[in-house]
Amino acid sequence: MADDASPEDHHELWLDDIEVGSHYRTDEYVVTEDEIVEFASRFDPQPFHLAAAGAAGTLFETLAASGWHTAAITMRLLATSGIPIATGIIGASIELAWPTPTRPGDVLHVELTVTGVTRSRSKPDRGFVTCTYDTLDAHDIVRQHTTATLLAFTRPVAT
Amino acid sequence: MADDASPEDHHELWLDDIEVGSHYRTDEYVVTEDEIVEFASRFDPQPFHLAAAGAAGTLFETLAASGWHTAAITMRLLATSGIPIATGIIGASIELAWPTPTRPGDVLHVELTVTGVTRSRSKPDRGFVTCTYDTLDAHDIVRQHTTATLLAFTRPVAT
Repeated sequence: MADDASPEDHHELWLDDIEVGSHYRTDEYVVTEDEIVEFASRFDPQPFHLAAAGAAGTLFETLAASGWHTAAITMRLLATSGIPIATGIIGASIELAWPTPTRPGDVLHVELTVTGVTRSRSKPDRGFVTCTYDTLDAHDIVRQHTTATLLAFTRPVAT
Repeated sequence: MADDASPEDHHELWLDDIEVGSHYRTDEYVVTEDEIVEFASRFDPQPFHLAAAGAAGTLFETLAASGWHTAAITMRLLATSGIPIATGIIGASIELAWPTPTRPGDVLHVELTVTGVTRSRSKPDRGFVTCTYDTLDAHDIVRQHTTATLLAFTRPVAT
Protein backbone atom coordinates (compact mmCIF):
# COMPACT_ATOMS: atom_id res chain seq x y z
CA MET A 1 0.00 0.00 0.00
CA ALA A 2 1.04 3.61 -0.25
CA ASP A 3 3.65 4.57 2.27
CA ASP A 4 1.30 7.20 3.69
CA ALA A 5 -2.02 5.45 3.12
CA SER A 6 -4.42 4.96 6.01
CA PRO A 7 -5.95 1.48 6.35
CA GLU A 8 -9.48 2.54 5.51
CA ASP A 9 -8.64 3.70 2.00
CA HIS A 10 -6.85 0.50 1.03
CA HIS A 11 -9.66 -0.70 -1.22
CA GLU A 12 -11.24 2.58 -2.18
CA LEU A 13 -9.21 4.69 -4.57
CA TRP A 14 -11.25 6.31 -7.31
CA LEU A 15 -9.69 8.12 -10.24
CA ASP A 16 -10.18 11.39 -8.34
CA ASP A 17 -8.06 10.09 -5.46
CA ILE A 18 -5.03 8.87 -7.38
CA GLU A 19 -2.05 11.21 -7.33
CA VAL A 20 0.93 11.36 -9.64
CA GLY A 21 4.02 10.34 -7.71
CA SER A 22 2.20 8.00 -5.33
CA HIS A 23 4.35 4.98 -4.51
CA TYR A 24 3.25 1.52 -3.52
CA ARG A 25 5.22 -1.48 -2.31
CA THR A 26 3.52 -4.86 -2.29
CA ASP A 27 3.89 -7.87 -0.05
CA GLU A 28 6.37 -10.61 -1.00
CA TYR A 29 5.99 -13.85 -2.95
CA VAL A 30 8.37 -16.80 -2.63
CA VAL A 31 9.02 -18.59 -5.95
CA THR A 32 9.84 -22.29 -5.68
CA GLU A 33 11.51 -24.54 -8.24
CA ASP A 34 8.41 -26.75 -8.26
CA GLU A 35 6.19 -23.81 -9.14
CA ILE A 36 8.54 -22.63 -11.90
CA VAL A 37 8.46 -26.08 -13.50
CA GLU A 38 4.70 -26.50 -13.05
CA PHE A 39 3.88 -23.13 -14.61
CA ALA A 40 6.25 -23.72 -17.50
CA SER A 41 4.84 -27.20 -18.14
CA ARG A 42 1.42 -25.64 -18.63
CA PHE A 43 2.23 -22.39 -20.37
CA ASP A 44 5.84 -22.16 -21.55
CA PRO A 45 7.23 -25.68 -22.05
CA GLN A 46 10.72 -24.77 -23.22
CA PRO A 47 13.74 -26.72 -21.91
CA PHE A 48 15.31 -23.82 -19.98
CA HIS A 49 12.07 -23.31 -18.01
CA LEU A 50 11.52 -27.02 -17.23
CA ALA A 51 14.78 -28.30 -15.70
CA ALA A 52 18.26 -27.16 -14.79
CA ALA A 53 19.63 -29.68 -17.28
CA GLY A 54 17.61 -28.07 -20.06
CA ALA A 55 19.00 -24.64 -19.22
CA ALA A 56 22.65 -25.75 -19.33
CA GLY A 57 24.33 -24.41 -22.44
CA THR A 58 21.60 -21.82 -23.03
CA LEU A 59 21.53 -18.11 -22.32
CA PHE A 60 19.95 -18.89 -18.95
CA GLU A 61 22.61 -21.41 -17.75
CA THR A 62 20.40 -22.62 -14.88
CA LEU A 63 16.64 -23.04 -14.43
CA ALA A 64 14.83 -19.79 -15.23
CA ALA A 65 11.15 -19.01 -14.74
CA SER A 66 9.02 -18.12 -17.74
CA GLY A 67 8.70 -14.36 -18.05
CA TRP A 68 4.94 -14.91 -18.14
CA HIS A 69 5.20 -16.59 -14.74
CA THR A 70 6.97 -13.50 -13.40
CA ALA A 71 4.21 -11.42 -14.99
CA ALA A 72 1.48 -13.53 -13.36
CA ILE A 73 3.14 -13.29 -9.93
CA THR A 74 3.49 -9.54 -10.43
CA MET A 75 -0.25 -9.33 -11.09
CA ARG A 76 -1.01 -11.33 -7.95
CA LEU A 77 1.12 -9.01 -5.83
CA LEU A 78 -0.54 -5.92 -7.32
CA ALA A 79 -4.07 -7.33 -7.01
CA THR A 80 -3.62 -8.37 -3.39
CA SER A 81 -1.37 -5.66 -1.97
CA GLY A 82 -0.68 -3.07 -4.67
CA ILE A 83 -2.50 0.08 -5.70
CA PRO A 84 -6.05 -0.25 -4.30
CA ILE A 85 -8.15 1.08 -7.15
CA ALA A 86 -11.81 0.80 -6.14
CA THR A 87 -12.90 -0.88 -9.36
CA GLY A 88 -9.87 -3.16 -9.58
CA ILE A 89 -6.70 -3.27 -11.62
CA ILE A 90 -7.77 -3.30 -15.25
CA GLY A 91 -4.91 -3.09 -17.74
CA ALA A 92 -5.56 -1.24 -20.98
CA SER A 93 -2.05 -1.55 -22.38
CA ILE A 94 1.23 -2.88 -21.08
CA GLU A 95 4.90 -2.66 -21.95
CA LEU A 96 7.25 -5.04 -20.21
CA ALA A 97 10.76 -6.36 -20.23
CA TRP A 98 12.59 -9.00 -18.24
CA PRO A 99 16.16 -7.75 -17.63
CA THR A 100 16.93 -10.94 -15.67
CA PRO A 101 14.88 -14.12 -15.20
CA THR A 102 13.18 -15.12 -11.97
CA ARG A 103 15.09 -17.98 -10.31
CA PRO A 104 14.15 -20.73 -7.82
CA GLY A 105 14.09 -19.30 -4.29
CA ASP A 106 13.48 -15.71 -5.38
CA VAL A 107 11.48 -13.63 -2.92
CA LEU A 108 9.71 -11.13 -5.16
CA HIS A 109 7.90 -7.89 -4.44
CA VAL A 110 6.68 -5.06 -6.64
CA GLU A 111 7.30 -1.33 -6.34
CA LEU A 112 4.93 0.89 -8.29
CA THR A 113 4.90 4.62 -8.99
CA VAL A 114 1.98 6.51 -10.52
CA THR A 115 3.26 8.62 -13.41
CA GLY A 116 0.05 10.06 -14.85
CA VAL A 117 -3.69 10.45 -14.31
CA THR A 118 -5.90 11.46 -17.24
CA ARG A 119 -9.65 11.80 -17.39
CA SER A 120 -11.40 10.59 -20.54
CA ARG A 121 -12.90 13.41 -22.62
CA SER A 122 -15.53 11.24 -24.25
CA LYS A 123 -16.51 9.25 -21.12
CA PRO A 124 -16.32 11.54 -18.08
CA ASP A 125 -16.96 8.70 -15.59
CA ARG A 126 -13.55 7.18 -16.27
CA GLY A 127 -9.93 7.82 -17.09
CA PHE A 128 -6.48 6.32 -17.26
CA VAL A 129 -3.76 5.85 -14.70
CA THR A 130 -0.26 5.35 -16.07
CA CYS A 131 2.30 3.77 -13.82
CA THR A 132 5.66 2.08 -13.90
CA TYR A 133 6.55 -0.84 -11.69
CA ASP A 134 9.48 -3.09 -11.06
CA THR A 135 9.31 -6.67 -9.86
CA LEU A 136 12.35 -7.10 -7.64
CA ASP A 137 14.08 -9.95 -5.87
CA ALA A 138 15.32 -9.70 -2.28
CA HIS A 139 18.50 -7.98 -3.48
CA ASP A 140 16.50 -5.46 -5.55
CA ILE A 141 17.59 -7.04 -8.83
CA VAL A 142 14.94 -6.22 -11.42
CA ARG A 143 13.17 -9.33 -12.75
CA GLN A 144 10.49 -7.39 -14.65
CA HIS A 145 10.05 -3.75 -15.57
CA THR A 146 6.56 -2.71 -16.59
CA THR A 147 4.83 0.40 -17.84
CA ALA A 148 1.06 0.08 -17.67
CA THR A 149 -1.98 2.11 -18.52
CA LEU A 150 -4.83 1.17 -16.20
CA LEU A 151 -8.51 2.00 -16.53
CA ALA A 152 -10.09 3.65 -13.49
CA PHE A 153 -13.44 5.22 -12.74
CA THR A 154 -14.41 8.45 -11.01
CA ARG A 155 -16.18 8.29 -7.66
CA PRO A 156 -19.88 7.55 -8.20
CA VAL A 157 -22.17 10.46 -7.43
CA ALA A 158 -24.64 9.67 -4.66
CA THR A 159 -28.17 9.65 -6.04
CA MET B 1 3.93 -23.29 -38.37
CA ALA B 2 4.67 -21.19 -41.41
CA ASP B 3 2.17 -21.71 -44.17
CA ASP B 4 4.96 -22.78 -46.48
CA ALA B 5 7.27 -24.46 -43.96
CA SER B 6 8.46 -27.98 -44.53
CA PRO B 7 8.22 -30.33 -41.51
CA GLU B 8 11.95 -30.72 -41.05
CA ASP B 9 12.58 -27.07 -40.31
CA HIS B 10 9.88 -26.84 -37.63
CA HIS B 11 12.36 -26.74 -34.77
CA GLU B 12 15.37 -25.33 -36.54
CA LEU B 13 15.09 -21.68 -37.45
CA TRP B 14 18.25 -19.72 -36.78
CA LEU B 15 18.40 -15.95 -37.07
CA ASP B 16 19.78 -16.37 -40.61
CA ASP B 17 16.66 -18.30 -41.63
CA ILE B 18 13.98 -15.92 -40.38
CA GLU B 19 12.39 -13.73 -43.02
CA VAL B 20 10.46 -10.51 -42.65
CA GLY B 21 6.87 -11.14 -43.62
CA SER B 22 6.83 -14.80 -42.57
CA HIS B 23 3.47 -15.73 -41.13
CA TYR B 24 2.66 -18.42 -38.58
CA ARG B 25 -0.64 -19.74 -37.30
CA THR B 26 -0.65 -21.87 -34.16
CA ASP B 27 -2.83 -24.73 -33.03
CA GLU B 28 -5.93 -24.00 -30.95
CA TYR B 29 -6.54 -23.90 -27.20
CA VAL B 30 -9.94 -24.30 -25.57
CA VAL B 31 -10.46 -22.09 -22.52
CA THR B 32 -12.82 -23.43 -19.87
CA GLU B 33 -14.61 -21.57 -17.11
CA ASP B 34 -12.88 -23.77 -14.53
CA GLU B 35 -9.46 -22.84 -15.89
CA ILE B 36 -10.30 -19.13 -15.92
CA VAL B 37 -11.33 -19.26 -12.27
CA GLU B 38 -8.37 -21.42 -11.23
CA PHE B 39 -5.80 -19.16 -12.92
CA ALA B 40 -7.41 -16.04 -11.47
CA SER B 41 -7.54 -17.54 -7.98
CA ARG B 42 -3.78 -18.00 -8.12
CA PHE B 43 -2.63 -14.93 -10.00
CA ASP B 44 -5.37 -12.32 -10.44
CA PRO B 45 -7.99 -12.75 -7.71
CA GLN B 46 -10.31 -9.92 -8.66
CA PRO B 47 -14.11 -10.45 -8.54
CA PHE B 48 -14.68 -10.16 -12.31
CA HIS B 49 -12.14 -12.95 -12.96
CA LEU B 50 -13.47 -15.30 -10.26
CA ALA B 51 -17.23 -15.64 -10.86
CA ALA B 52 -19.97 -14.41 -13.14
CA ALA B 53 -21.64 -12.82 -10.11
CA GLY B 54 -18.50 -10.80 -9.42
CA ALA B 55 -18.43 -9.50 -12.98
CA ALA B 56 -22.04 -8.26 -12.93
CA GLY B 57 -22.14 -4.49 -12.75
CA THR B 58 -18.50 -4.16 -13.84
CA LEU B 59 -17.03 -3.27 -17.19
CA PHE B 60 -16.82 -7.00 -17.98
CA GLU B 61 -20.52 -7.83 -17.26
CA THR B 62 -19.83 -11.59 -17.29
CA LEU B 63 -16.88 -13.76 -16.26
CA ALA B 64 -13.70 -12.57 -18.00
CA ALA B 65 -10.29 -14.24 -17.97
CA SER B 66 -7.33 -12.39 -16.55
CA GLY B 67 -5.34 -10.76 -19.33
CA TRP B 68 -2.31 -12.54 -17.90
CA HIS B 69 -4.09 -15.84 -18.44
CA THR B 70 -4.62 -14.91 -22.07
CA ALA B 71 -0.93 -13.98 -22.23
CA ALA B 72 0.12 -17.33 -20.73
CA ILE B 73 -2.07 -19.29 -23.18
CA THR B 74 -0.63 -17.22 -26.02
CA MET B 75 2.86 -18.21 -24.91
CA ARG B 76 1.88 -21.88 -24.79
CA LEU B 77 0.52 -21.74 -28.32
CA LEU B 78 3.65 -20.00 -29.60
CA ALA B 79 6.03 -22.35 -27.76
CA THR B 80 4.29 -25.49 -28.98
CA SER B 81 3.17 -24.56 -32.49
CA GLY B 82 4.36 -21.05 -33.29
CA ILE B 83 7.55 -19.73 -34.82
CA PRO B 84 10.13 -22.54 -34.43
CA ILE B 85 13.25 -20.60 -33.43
CA ALA B 86 16.04 -23.12 -32.85
CA THR B 87 17.05 -21.67 -29.49
CA GLY B 88 13.50 -21.11 -28.28
CA ILE B 89 11.20 -18.13 -27.89
CA ILE B 90 13.02 -15.68 -25.64
CA GLY B 91 11.26 -12.36 -25.20
CA ALA B 92 13.44 -9.28 -24.79
CA SER B 93 10.62 -6.76 -24.65
CA ILE B 94 6.87 -6.93 -25.10
CA GLU B 95 4.00 -4.55 -25.72
CA LEU B 96 0.49 -5.89 -25.32
CA ALA B 97 -3.11 -4.88 -25.11
CA TRP B 98 -6.34 -6.75 -24.52
CA PRO B 99 -9.03 -5.20 -26.75
CA THR B 100 -11.57 -7.72 -25.43
CA PRO B 101 -11.29 -10.27 -22.61
CA THR B 102 -11.06 -14.02 -23.10
CA ARG B 103 -14.35 -15.70 -22.17
CA PRO B 104 -15.34 -19.21 -21.07
CA GLY B 105 -15.56 -21.50 -24.10
CA ASP B 106 -13.20 -19.45 -26.24
CA VAL B 107 -11.18 -21.45 -28.75
CA LEU B 108 -8.00 -19.40 -29.12
CA HIS B 109 -5.22 -19.45 -31.66
CA VAL B 110 -2.38 -17.07 -32.45
CA GLU B 111 -1.38 -15.54 -35.77
CA LEU B 112 2.13 -14.09 -35.92
CA THR B 113 3.94 -12.03 -38.54
CA VAL B 114 7.67 -11.31 -38.51
CA THR B 115 8.19 -7.56 -38.97
CA GLY B 116 11.94 -7.23 -38.58
CA VAL B 117 15.22 -9.12 -38.24
CA THR B 118 18.30 -7.31 -36.93
CA ARG B 119 21.74 -8.68 -36.21
CA SER B 120 23.49 -7.39 -33.10
CA ARG B 121 26.52 -5.23 -33.88
CA SER B 122 28.27 -5.92 -30.59
CA LYS B 123 27.50 -9.67 -30.43
CA PRO B 124 27.57 -11.12 -33.96
CA ASP B 125 26.28 -14.54 -32.84
CA ARG B 126 22.83 -13.13 -32.10
CA GLY B 127 20.18 -10.64 -33.08
CA PHE B 128 16.59 -9.61 -32.64
CA VAL B 129 13.39 -10.70 -34.31
CA THR B 130 10.49 -8.28 -34.05
CA CYS B 131 7.03 -9.63 -34.61
CA THR B 132 3.40 -8.78 -34.05
CA TYR B 133 0.81 -11.35 -33.11
CA ASP B 134 -2.85 -11.50 -32.36
CA THR B 135 -4.56 -13.98 -30.08
CA LEU B 136 -7.94 -14.63 -31.70
CA ASP B 137 -11.11 -16.46 -30.78
CA ALA B 138 -12.96 -18.72 -33.21
CA HIS B 139 -14.68 -15.69 -34.75
CA ASP B 140 -11.34 -13.86 -35.17
CA ILE B 141 -12.15 -11.39 -32.41
CA VAL B 142 -8.85 -10.11 -31.00
CA ARG B 143 -8.33 -11.07 -27.35
CA GLN B 144 -4.72 -9.91 -27.23
CA HIS B 145 -2.52 -7.88 -29.55
CA THR B 146 1.20 -8.17 -28.96
CA THR B 147 4.37 -6.65 -30.36
CA ALA B 148 7.45 -8.54 -29.25
CA THR B 149 11.18 -8.35 -29.68
CA LEU B 150 12.66 -11.84 -29.47
CA LEU B 151 16.28 -12.83 -29.04
CA ALA B 152 17.61 -15.31 -31.62
CA PHE B 153 21.02 -16.73 -32.46
CA THR B 154 22.82 -17.24 -35.73
CA ARG B 155 23.46 -20.76 -36.98
CA PRO B 156 26.46 -22.23 -35.15
CA VAL B 157 29.53 -22.63 -37.30
CA ALA B 158 30.65 -26.25 -37.55
CA THR B 159 34.05 -26.66 -35.89
